[in-house]
Amino acid sequence: LKKDVEQMKLQDPNFRPGLVVLQVSARLELACLDILGCFVAESVKAVCPQVLHSITEVNENSSVHGLIVQLPLDSVHKIDTEKVTNAVAPEKDVDGLTSINAGKLSRGDLRDCFIPCTPSGCMDDIVISRSCVPKPIDCLAREVGLLSDEVELFGKTKAKVQLKIIKRLQAQPDGKYVVVTGITPTPLGEGKSTTTIGLVQALGAHMKLNVFACVRQPSQGPTFGIKGGAAGGGYSQVIPMEEFNLHLTGDIHAITAANNLVAAAVDARIFHESTQSDKALYNRLVPLSGGQRKFSPIQINRLKKLGIEKTDPSTLTEEEITRFARLDMDPSSVTWQRVLDTNDRFLRKITIGQSPTEKGYTREAQFDITVASEIMAVLALTSSLEDMRQRLAKMVVATSRGGQPITTEDLGVSGALAVLMKDAIKPNLMQTLEGTPVFVHAGPFANIAHGNSSILADIIALKLVGPEGFVVTEAGFGADIGMEKFFNIKCRYSGLRPHVVVLVATVRALKMHGGGPTVTAGMPLPKEYIEENLELLEKGCSNMTKQIENAQHFGLPVVVAVNAFKTDTEAELDLVCNMAKAARAFDAVRCSHWAEGGAGALALGQAVQRASEAPSKFKFLYDLELPIADKIRIIAQKIYGADDIELLPEAQHKVELYTKQGFSKLPICMAKTHLSLSHEADKKGVPTGFIVPIRDIRASVGSGFLFPLVGTMPTIPGLPTRPCFYDIDLDPETEQVNGLF
Amino acid sequence: LKKDVEQMKLQDPNFRPGLVVLQVSARLELACLDILGCFVAESVKAVCPQVLHSITEVNENSSVHGLIVQLPLDSVHKIDTEKVTNAVAPEKDVDGLTSINAGKLSRGDLRDCFIPCTPSGCMDDIVISRSCVPKPIDCLAREVGLLSDEVELFGKTKAKVQLKIIKRLQAQPDGKYVVVTGITPTPLGEGKSTTTIGLVQALGAHMKLNVFACVRQPSQGPTFGIKGGAAGGGYSQVIPMEEFNLHLTGDIHAITAANNLVAAAVDARIFHESTQSDKALYNRLVPLSGGQRKFSPIQINRLKKLGIEKTDPSTLTEEEITRFARLDMDPSSVTWQRVLDTNDRFLRKITIGQSPTEKGYTREAQFDITVASEIMAVLALTSSLEDMRQRLAKMVVATSRGGQPITTEDLGVSGALAVLMKDAIKPNLMQTLEGTPVFVHAGPFANIAHGNSSILADIIALKLVGPEGFVVTEAGFGADIGMEKFFNIKCRYSGLRPHVVVLVATVRALKMHGGGPTVTAGMPLPKEYIEENLELLEKGCSNMTKQIENAQHFGLPVVVAVNAFKTDTEAELDLVCNMAKAARAFDAVRCSHWAEGGAGALALGQAVQRASEAPSKFKFLYDLELPIADKIRIIAQKIYGADDIELLPEAQHKVELYTKQGFSKLPICMAKTHLSLSHEADKKGVPTGFIVPIRDIRASVGSGFLFPLVGTMPTIPGLPTRPCFYDIDLDPETEQVNGLF
Repeated sequence: LKKDVEQMKLQDPNFRPGLVVLQVSARLELACLDILGCFVAESVKAVCPQVLHSITEVNENSSVHGLIVQLPLDSVHKIDTEKVTNAVAPEKDVDGLTSINAGKLSRGDLRDCFIPCTPSGCMDDIVISRSCVPKPIDCLAREVGLLSDEVELFGKTKAKVQLKIIKRLQAQPDGKYVVVTGITPTPLGEGKSTTTIGLVQALGAHMKLNVFACVRQPSQGPTFGIKGGAAGGGYSQVIPMEEFNLHLTGDIHAITAANNLVAAAVDARIFHESTQSDKALYNRLVPLSGGQRKFSPIQINRLKKLGIEKTDPSTLTEEEITRFARLDMDPSSVTWQRVLDTNDRFLRKITIGQSPTEKGYTREAQFDITVASEIMAVLALTSSLEDMRQRLAKMVVATSRGGQPITTEDLGVSGALAVLMKDAIKPNLMQTLEGTPVFVHAGPFANIAHGNSSILADIIALKLVGPEGFVVTEAGFGADIGMEKFFNIKCRYSGLRPHVVVLVATVRALKMHGGGPTVTAGMPLPKEYIEENLELLEKGCSNMTKQIENAQHFGLPVVVAVNAFKTDTEAELDLVCNMAKAARAFDAVRCSHWAEGGAGALALGQAVQRASEAPSKFKFLYDLELPIADKIRIIAQKIYGADDIELLPEAQHKVELYTKQGFSKLPICMAKTHLSLSHEADKKGVPTGFIVPIRDIRASVGSGFLFPLVGTMPTIPGLPTRPCFYDIDLDPETEQVNGLF
Repeated sequence: LKKDVEQMKLQDPNFRPGLVVLQVSARLELACLDILGCFVAESVKAVCPQVLHSITEVNENSSVHGLIVQLPLDSVHKIDTEKVTNAVAPEKDVDGLTSINAGKLSRGDLRDCFIPCTPSGCMDDIVISRSCVPKPIDCLAREVGLLSDEVELFGKTKAKVQLKIIKRLQAQPDGKYVVVTGITPTPLGEGKSTTTIGLVQALGAHMKLNVFACVRQPSQGPTFGIKGGAAGGGYSQVIPMEEFNLHLTGDIHAITAANNLVAAAVDARIFHESTQSDKALYNRLVPLSGGQRKFSPIQINRLKKLGIEKTDPSTLTEEEITRFARLDMDPSSVTWQRVLDTNDRFLRKITIGQSPTEKGYTREAQFDITVASEIMAVLALTSSLEDMRQRLAKMVVATSRGGQPITTEDLGVSGALAVLMKDAIKPNLMQTLEGTPVFVHAGPFANIAHGNSSILADIIALKLVGPEGFVVTEAGFGADIGMEKFFNIKCRYSGLRPHVVVLVATVRALKMHGGGPTVTAGMPLPKEYIEENLELLEKGCSNMTKQIENAQHFGLPVVVAVNAFKTDTEAELDLVCNMAKAARAFDAVRCSHWAEGGAGALALGQAVQRASEAPSKFKFLYDLELPIADKIRIIAQKIYGADDIELLPEAQHKVELYTKQGFSKLPICMAKTHLSLSHEADKKGVPTGFIVPIRDIRASVGSGFLFPLVGTMPTIPGLPTRPCFYDIDLDPETEQVNGLF
């Protein structure tokens, strides 16, 4: 636009631009004052039916050279877009300034309000993050086709997107859907997040395609422990990285609040039931108000579940009163844990209820990190507000002494949970260092949950980029875990069908799989990893080959992205690419996006684009109707390469319990180490001849999966002797955050 | 503006408004595209030095009838406001459209983008809250004189205000400062919040004065327990009430995160010290990186505190290494508790560290509700980012075995706390049902802390309303607690001087003080409270008289607001007003803002305006230099009417400890029941002849006060048998919250 005006001015020195931006929105009067000064304010006072007249009027004003009409869909419904278009065209078109735009500026129109980052060899993530002046987020929102009424700004660099956009864009064909996964990593990680960001920077800022990255919100706890930030790295980052890593828009905090309300409700209910008769309980649960007792809607839901089709509290029989009022939870059966988004190791196992006010009803309990909450998994897997309300109500917190699963709806807390989560459900818009859009939404634990970002963010992004565009989403851990769950759980619930798998590999990790020495976080790398060693590397490529196969089980083309480190040699990088192609990868390319930003992932972007046009026939790995043990066995044999599984007694018991309770049709979410294809972290490469022991099985009924436990999973990290918070500080003058990495 | 344009059009049918809104901001190019279409975009491309030229150019354009220049202060500094003014005036002035405006539209300009609430007899707070279409918050922000660069939007109804505005407005004289307090209340509360909101609605929407209400952010926990919302009530509310009550902009969540990071750091440090030698500790705390050891700035702060003036880690002696590395906290001395914003009674007393990974280092601990965190008190009492950073560093978490106070700075976590709190420090802008502005900021516990909203919100509001305007702030509990702390703690740290005290009284509470039956939450009111009873009432007015005196101790005029209920009789209301005047209140008026909104508090508004012009000579109650016990005694005798105080042994010990540690000059924050002037909740009216026992004294060194404990204070509420979450739900279609009250 600005360029157009400049050009006009060059061509005609007397040119006086009288272009009018007419923004028609629900807040019409305000929008006019805001956007137009008062040029159109007095002529467009109208609500939608009058818009057409106003446009015509403005159009007839000879001082107006052009017109942009930005119409949100709700008004378009009412006023017939064709007529609007006709009201302006063709006269105004001739001077090259007019564009009728139902809600979308073309890409790049606003790009010059943004100073992108130029790689300059800096090594410090937060310094790089700060070297770029981000686009104002409202500007980016318009650029990607969001209407102002669909966006809720959170400061200048973050915004939430309302779900109503899904309805507006329902007729729009989806873009191409790319999942980034990895080979079995070292404990240092092999750069999946960085590759995800580098790839969208390449596709968007360099190849000028519509793109979106969809990534997980990181847990805040580890940011202050040993891990540091998680916004990608180097010249492939989500910015501002401090906003990304801290609080964001409060989604994880909302989960903490919702999760702990359930926990407080569980223990308070057990306590109150233990000290009251059925009748007293009932009278308190359904209190007299204005001389009458009345069930709340949530209580009526519980009555229905119990098969009591009554709505008048005075008509319940004594037996019905008991069944309704007494949940009779067995304290030892409580599976619902409290959570905090803090690395607090002293909360791993605690005894609660020791104050005299709780009259001796103590019990053992624990805190998990917030991202391990089932509510986080619900957020990631839900597809609408209504669906989230239902999932939150179905969450099982304990078993009654009679063997019934007790849900949050039984506790009466399900509506409050939906209320606490009503904003968290809206995906968060941010941007990369090169100004391409990113959705940051949900971040479920990758071991006891499925470790993928939200379905809603992917759905919205796929609509926004349109059929030629790309949405790149990351799956946690290696392909045997994150990718398998992405397909079998996330894609199953979303109905979305991916086009391409990008598998990230590093020379370092492949050498480890080839028999290299142990790699430990915080320790210097042994020389095998710093010097050329083609022998170790070639041997270790077996892990990559197996993970390529794993992706092919789902019928998709695989592009291997070799994330190059500066110590890797040409021969090493070539070897990996050749081995990948030999394993029938669609393509294999080396990438240097960490050091070079999107430019360093251009070959990857091109390979992904080609792969997205290749024929694919996506299929799931197992049928949900199979018995629980069979589903687990298929994953273990086909993906991990195990000979078989072994159900230990507790797991066997749970198979029977869940089958009886009706939960056997749920997909499987394996809780297994990510450091080996097998269940033993130190077995590198492609282990064979092993049997996967299933210690126990848990149910995440609200989020919708069963998670078999293979070994013990830590659910809340601790702080080391010198946590990284020692380096973190705020400059009170500039308000800049220092020391995050 | 809009009206001006309309009027111009009426007067001159050929009128073509060519008014230009020239917004010069840091994001110049964007602002132009946004605000102007591209009319000025091409002429004002410049950064600040070129703005003047552009203005002149626009000014010379004959099609431009008027000009509004909105200049943020940073550009005004650079370009000389006088010159800008001269560049436009006088030609453009004549047509009545021009206004040079350094950041402020006149009040009411934008008021018609707002549909205010009209009282209609509805009794349901959330229905009333929803009956009003709120002003878009960016519109309200401009109306009160905020520049767009000073505002961070949080959705459409909330915004954060950046602290840099204090510098911009430093030369602006403050408005009138009014504190709302109350007589000793019944457990039901007597309507201080409602009166605060009603009063600003009267002053702002009816008397057309510039106003701000400054209120506390409510704790979210009790919203789901028995308390319900806390946004005022009836037709005097902060809206939207669900946003006010839930999450807001995440400030309390930030406090939870910051507080619990400290707690995790305390226990992790005790654990790591217990398992490592001094040398091993030191090597981990100051690790080798690239062959070198280096202190972080926070570690250098600790070295300075220890009197070790060294910056090279290799030069410390063994004794210095031990002193530096070993905090040697006595686990039994840890005063720092974990917090949650949830009513979770089972966390009142717990045992932590029971997982085998913590090797048996268990200890007893507790959770408090988040608003009881010292960090909340710091937020409320801080005056700048720099000051907050320092207060957060001074917080004492435990005592070493050698008797030294151990601070968050010693733990190395102080910088991370400042980072976590960097957004929470910005006050939150919301609005009342009648569209007047409200700051919602900080909500420290009113018993173990000082129970007042933030100093920063008051400072900014006083500047924004200007010398003829009013800022109304609420102090928690009755005048003997909240008001006393408001003056002696909050005003002492802020340097602000109040003009008027509004004392809220109800017939109900006064009857209770006159000997009426016990009033209990959740139980029907005895008939004494529903029927006229002048005898009880007259007797109970003694409490009001005493609280009026208490306010007068500080040298301020007192306006009594009699918050009328529908069961109160004319004779009763008259009696209270007469008794108040007899006690030398400046005035006493009845109010009906609950039922009628601002119109019902008009008499109160007028009385407050008159009182604000009366001479006042504010003074503190005690000198900080006095010994701790003397300060406590003065409060007990002058405010509570006690004969004396008695320091029990633990309190005596603390007096000595804190005097030795250098904390004796801090003001006093009494932790006493709010249900009686005395320390015994059931002593109503004006108790006499009692001695206040001081059980213990605690130090809140970062927030800056000592809090003597009179009795036991509950620090985390519990859930009842039927929590109010049973009624709360979300409508998935409309996204409306139902059942909050």
